[in-house]
Amino acid sequence: MSKFTIAVVAGASAAVGAATTAALYGIGSKKESSASTIATTTTTVSNPGATRTTPPPPAPVPLPRNAVPLQPPVDPAGVFQYGFPGPVSDIRNACSLTSSFNRTTRNPHWVAEHITPASLLMTGGDRRHSYFAEDESIPEKFRAKLKDYFRSGYDRGHQVPAADAKWSQEAMDSTFALSNMCPQVGDGFNRDYWAHFEDFCRRLTSFYPSVRIVTGPLYLPKRDPVDGKWRVSYEVVGHPPNVAVPTHFYKVVFAEDGKTGGKVSLGAFVLPNDRIPNDKPLQDFEVPVEAVERASGLEFASLLPPARRKKLCQEVSCSIIVKEYAERQRTPLTPPPAKGIAAQASPIQK
Amino acid sequence: MSKFTIAVVAGASAAVGAATTAALYGIGSKKESSASTIATTTTTVSNPGATRTTPPPPAPVPLPRNAVPLQPPVDPAGVFQYGFPGPVSDIRNACSLTSSFNRTTRNPHWVAEHITPASLLMTGGDRRHSYFAEDESIPEKFRAKLKDYFRSGYDRGHQVPAADAKWSQEAMDSTFALSNMCPQVGDGFNRDYWAHFEDFCRRLTSFYPSVRIVTGPLYLPKRDPVDGKWRVSYEVVGHPPNVAVPTHFYKVVFAEDGKTGGKVSLGAFVLPNDRIPNDKPLQDFEVPVEAVERASGLEFASLLPPARRKKLCQEVSCSIIVKEYAERQRTPLTPPPAKGIAAQASPIQK
Repeated sequence: MSKFTIAVVAGASAAVGAATTAALYGIGSKKESSASTIATTTTTVSNPGATRTTPPPPAPVPLPRNAVPLQPPVDPAGVFQYGFPGPVSDIRNACSLTSSFNRTTRNPHWVAEHITPASLLMTGGDRRHSYFAEDESIPEKFRAKLKDYFRSGYDRGHQVPAADAKWSQEAMDSTFALSNMCPQVGDGFNRDYWAHFEDFCRRLTSFYPSVRIVTGPLYLPKRDPVDGKWRVSYEVVGHPPNVAVPTHFYKVVFAEDGKTGGKVSLGAFVLPNDRIPNDKPLQDFEVPVEAVERASGLEFASLLPPARRKKLCQEVSCSIIVKEYAERQRTPLTPPPAKGIAAQASPIQK
Repeated sequence: MSKFTIAVVAGASAAVGAATTAALYGIGSKKESSASTIATTTTTVSNPGATRTTPPPPAPVPLPRNAVPLQPPVDPAGVFQYGFPGPVSDIRNACSLTSSFNRTTRNPHWVAEHITPASLLMTGGDRRHSYFAEDESIPEKFRAKLKDYFRSGYDRGHQVPAADAKWSQEAMDSTFALSNMCPQVGDGFNRDYWAHFEDFCRRLTSFYPSVRIVTGPLYLPKRDPVDGKWRVSYEVVGHPPNVAVPTHFYKVVFAEDGKTGGKVSLGAFVLPNDRIPNDKPLQDFEVPVEAVERASGLEFASLLPPARRKKLCQEVSCSIIVKEYAERQRTPLTPPPAKGIAAQASPIQK
């Protein structure tokens, strides 16, 4: 029954303008006005006879009009006898990540990880021994498939990076499940700016003994310059088209001081799924945590008291260090994190 | 911080072509091919020193390289100490409906109802005494607001129709919560074809002693005629823009024979959120239940054995009866359902 044509070429199609991220900031606007109601009718009230091709069951017994029911005459939740509709969010607990999957977009809602100076020093895993794999814990009709990404024009972009899970082969393998992936623009994003951003998160372990990162996709609206309306618009890839290509990605970073009940330095970032010039400051992508919450429908720090919160980018310089792809391949081993040194004047070091 | 302009005019903007529904049928396509892998790199491996503005904590103790960890050095799920991210689906159990809310789109995932010949005859509720209301059980930042709909150009479209809950005022009032609404095109859809479709569902009680209906929004991809790519594109209304305007709506109908463990006649329909000519046959919008499942990420009849299933539109003539808005207002009372009569030749009766 498939009537679909394969989307062969894609590349940096999203073309997400800077104006888009403005949508993230639309929080805490005016208090609710006493909006007048719009006259609208949803339903008809006529009930003439319908047609059927089989004999009718017995006629119902009418109750007297205006009778007040002692108990409801209907049972809306009774439909659950046929199965609860969901949505099921497919929580996955792997040794290197915990995630929740969105069966509508076939991408995760979020993927959480934990890195420490020690975990990044361990080298039991090698990505050359890992293979991308479908997540068979998710029902076939809702999971992303290898073939959906094939020739889609997009990378299978890790949400928890493989390089954060080098501490064992199993840990690394866990990051290669498609439930840890989203379609990402390759050149200029997944292989470049996003990779530098992931590296920034790892470098935080130079200063914090424990860093937690939650990563996931966003589908943000953009104002149409022609009619002025706001629209969410994203490509879907696969056969049939079913895996959403996010317009943006977020990371919420919890940098912990290592003390029980201690301080947590919070930072939230939203980057467009598009080529980003390396000279763009990372801090341009910093947003309030609440902006990610409103856009994603999720909550990230509801149990973290204000007194324990600090602002990450006031503690460290939130900036990337550019190391080109070829250079990264030549020096694949992670050197021990350098201890805190004098703040660098430039946010970018080539 | 709001940078948004109010979307004052909208109307039937979705302009969803018939080709769109083809996306629903893309089920059960070719078996998975042995897709070759796409070379992609998500992460860097360098770890030079980052910059900071506060003194560093103690340096980490490096573990020996290639050590096999007896237990994982990290705890990804530990981030839940700051609150579980969700998504929370805000289940609502009212006397006239049960629903699940989507905090990202600010629309329901689904709303389930139950109607019987007796419940439709009862007249304890009057919509003139009901008022649209925000659902205060949903956190403020995730709920749809009255002001979001105001001047949006869209109706507040009931998912469970008010006319299905006339059996008490409380039942009817329950249907006026915004968690039972989606932005719907008014003229030609919510006030016309969709209303006739809701009427069709009520008329089913002429033949089935118990009818369950699950209704909800869809956001379906459409093939771009220019580049051939499939894209999901939908407007978002409100201040800031945050309530999604669905491209389509579905209903999954369970018409029960009233016997314990008896037969259930299943029908699923997907209609575009757009003007639909009254002469368009309802059966054009019938789809396999699985198509709604793949598009919505939900499951509707996973516990209903095949032996108990029948096909609704093979049992009754799935067709609407057009009764114009003014006529419906003149005869607001619901007449008792007619018993099964001879099948009508024409699906449309003016």
